[in-house]
Amino acid sequence: MAKPKILIQLDADAHASVFDAVVAVDAGIDHLFQYHSVTPEKIRDLVYGAMFTRGGPDLASTALFIGGSNVAAGEQLLRKAVGCFFGPMRVSVMLDANGANTTAAAAVLAASKHLDLSQIQAAVLAGTGPVGQRAVRLLARAGAQVRLISRSLEKAAAAAESIAPSTEEVAARITPLAATTAEETLDAVAHCELVIAAGAAGVELLSASVRSRCPALQVAIDLNAVPPLGIAGVESHDKGTARDGVIGYGALGVGGTKMKIHRAAIQRLFQSNDQVLDAEQIYAIGRELG
Amino acid sequence: MAKPKILIQLDADAHASVFDAVVAVDAGIDHLFQYHSVTPEKIRDLVYGAMFTRGGPDLASTALFIGGSNVAAGEQLLRKAVGCFFGPMRVSVMLDANGANTTAAAAVLAASKHLDLSQIQAAVLAGTGPVGQRAVRLLARAGAQVRLISRSLEKAAAAAESIAPSTEEVAARITPLAATTAEETLDAVAHCELVIAAGAAGVELLSASVRSRCPALQVAIDLNAVPPLGIAGVESHDKGTARDGVIGYGALGVGGTKMKIHRAAIQRLFQSNDQVLDAEQIYAIGRELG
Amino acid sequence: MAKPKILIQLDADAHASVFDAVVAVDAGIDHLFQYHSVTPEKIRDLVYGAMFTRGGPDLASTALFIGGSNVAAGEQLLRKAVGCFFGPMRVSVMLDANGANTTAAAAVLAASKHLDLSQIQAAVLAGTGPVGQRAVRLLARAGAQVRLISRSLEKAAAAAESIAPSTEEVAARITPLAATTAEETLDAVAHCELVIAAGAAGVELLSASVRSRCPALQVAIDLNAVPPLGIAGVESHDKGTARDGVIGYGALGVGGTKMKIHRAAIQRLFQSNDQVLDAEQIYAIGRELG
Repeated sequence: MAKPKILIQLDADAHASVFDAVVAVDAGIDHLFQYHSVTPEKIRDLVYGAMFTRGGPDLASTALFIGGSNVAAGEQLLRKAVGCFFGPMRVSVMLDANGANTTAAAAVLAASKHLDLSQIQAAVLAGTGPVGQRAVRLLARAGAQVRLISRSLEKAAAAAESIAPSTEEVAARITPLAATTAEETLDAVAHCELVIAAGAAGVELLSASVRSRCPALQVAIDLNAVPPLGIAGVESHDKGTARDGVIGYGALGVGGTKMKIHRAAIQRLFQSNDQVLDAEQIYAIGRELG
Repeated sequence: MAKPKILIQLDADAHASVFDAVVAVDAGIDHLFQYHSVTPEKIRDLVYGAMFTRGGPDLASTALFIGGSNVAAGEQLLRKAVGCFFGPMRVSVMLDANGANTTAAAAVLAASKHLDLSQIQAAVLAGTGPVGQRAVRLLARAGAQVRLISRSLEKAAAAAESIAPSTEEVAARITPLAATTAEETLDAVAHCELVIAAGAAGVELLSASVRSRCPALQVAIDLNAVPPLGIAGVESHDKGTARDGVIGYGALGVGGTKMKIHRAAIQRLFQSNDQVLDAEQIYAIGRELG
Repeated sequence: MAKPKILIQLDADAHASVFDAVVAVDAGIDHLFQYHSVTPEKIRDLVYGAMFTRGGPDLASTALFIGGSNVAAGEQLLRKAVGCFFGPMRVSVMLDANGANTTAAAAVLAASKHLDLSQIQAAVLAGTGPVGQRAVRLLARAGAQVRLISRSLEKAAAAAESIAPSTEEVAARITPLAATTAEETLDAVAHCELVIAAGAAGVELLSASVRSRCPALQVAIDLNAVPPLGIAGVESHDKGTARDGVIGYGALGVGGTKMKIHRAAIQRLFQSNDQVLDAEQIYAIGRELG
């Protein structure tokens, strides 16, 4: 008989995320251990406790979930956790700090339903943030020419570099660009079939006037749920909604898919003891869901 | 199929209450998430995590329990939590910091089995504390004339005011009074059919000599379990026990009812997603239990 | 119907042990409440919450587990927790800070399968540490003449004293000894049938050369899993493995038994509400497992 499924929530924040905890329960885990204020210095003993308690196939019934609002902190915890493993002594681990991986996967998955990503130019507005960076990475991996757009060229370039794409071929598809004024934004997105806005809550990144001058635009995805929204003419609840000939997805429209991917990714953790689920793996799980 | 029942324990103390956690399990919840050191500044993200993970009728399977030893802190957390809700986006929430609501409800419920509360004069000794204030509130709402007694008139008046009764009619039934000496206490309680002592552990509030000069007294309820008890002639285990013609309830006698109310209130949280259980609602649940 | 089994994990560290939590689940508990940063000053309310929520036979369905990396801190928490109990108002409690009790029990149990402990001389290298002290205590109680060996005679003597054996007869069987050089180690262990090495990770306490001059040696148990191991000629995975005529147990070989004892001890907690499981009780549980 399989051991009860234990998910160990490792969160860098002062309180472990309730959101992640509820999704874990709804994914079917039996026991959740919640850890807050987890630092790279403190994670080893927690990971060892997961590795050294169950043996053989039972190791697949223990898994780690790395969350918290700070994605960079989460990435560091993921590296440290994976660094504790050796040989078959390992447990599966998923990174979804701030929901960045599941959100980016859901956004790119939405786009892929309407576009052949390998044939398009895409723009990611506010592409320097954690969700934006992951969307850029997933789009470039899928073959798109991607413009990573920020108010600062320096930050855009740094983000493009830190994405660390797997091959030079993928790296060559990413172009960092600065855009602060409406004209600069128009220059950046005018020829793009896809625009994803991954900016902060309440900041409009693509105005109605700029948008009206983007004849190539086919899909607009806005991940900001708090008005003013990030893309004029996209509503929060839009989910493949056509308006003026452009298919739109809002934050809540993407959110349903994000939740499904999140749950499916947690279930995947318990299929073997060697899963490491970061952006690409989580996107692949999303594609399997269809 | 209904989702697993998740109770999120939000506690302002450095350790979330074991007491509240055990009662939650015995009320039949499936998963308990325990949060300690919860502050008004930090509660929003926790509440959002509860609100934004399950949809529609499933929202009724997630609920909040606000505890901790500091009732004022708990009240502040309750206001903040309820303030996060909007429209149908909400989960049920119960406040029982320091057990104040369930204890006051159990005490007033005990009295109501022997007296028509709308026809009596009642005295709440140490009525300024969290349990005392709630007992005063519940008695006045039930129609009793209530004397809120403290060593300081200033504190008694402030407490009577902070109870913030729902109507002026209710407010008019509450009289703040000071009593430090035996004579003052006698003046305050002499004509009362009901006395509830809600004072600190180990402090006698009603002596045998004063009590013997209270001919109207029919029910005496003492919520202090640590000797010396709060009311002379009432034993901790008394539960409707008649002594010298007065029916007595001690802390342990009230405690059994308190536990039943506590469990029933937690179960009530999961019947819909819009319950807000404070003193009055918890007392109503107690009345339904009979 | 029995209440759900609740185990309350009280841990003095900044994060409650994942290891202990997973073992608790695998022992069949229904709900685990994890508490970290538990201090002697803070434990009372936690213990009261366990004692005052369930009554009568149901008290046996709530139990305490005291863990953490600091065994002295754990011992202090155990004393404080037991001090909260009165009369039948108590719950079962187990101490296994740093796994010291289950590890020492497993090591002594391994030895007892090959030797009549009441007839032997035994040496515990690094006997001043928490596992070493418990191994010394268990061996002396079983009738062995035990040499508690440390680099410092002063520390060895202090440890022998702090073990506080139950009777003078047991105390008389414990001899503190200092050994720093190979010759001193040889003097200390030469006539022993059993050697247990309970030292720090990566420190060799018994070299091949010394070991080759110990003709009486029959069983060698090394609790250090990180190379260089504590006893030359014992491998981590050894579990009753004969090499050069000596039966060896390594850390992983002992570990399987330790886990079985740990799980069985947790299950024992729920058989009644009055168990206090420290080294001797946990060793007795191990003996019953055979």
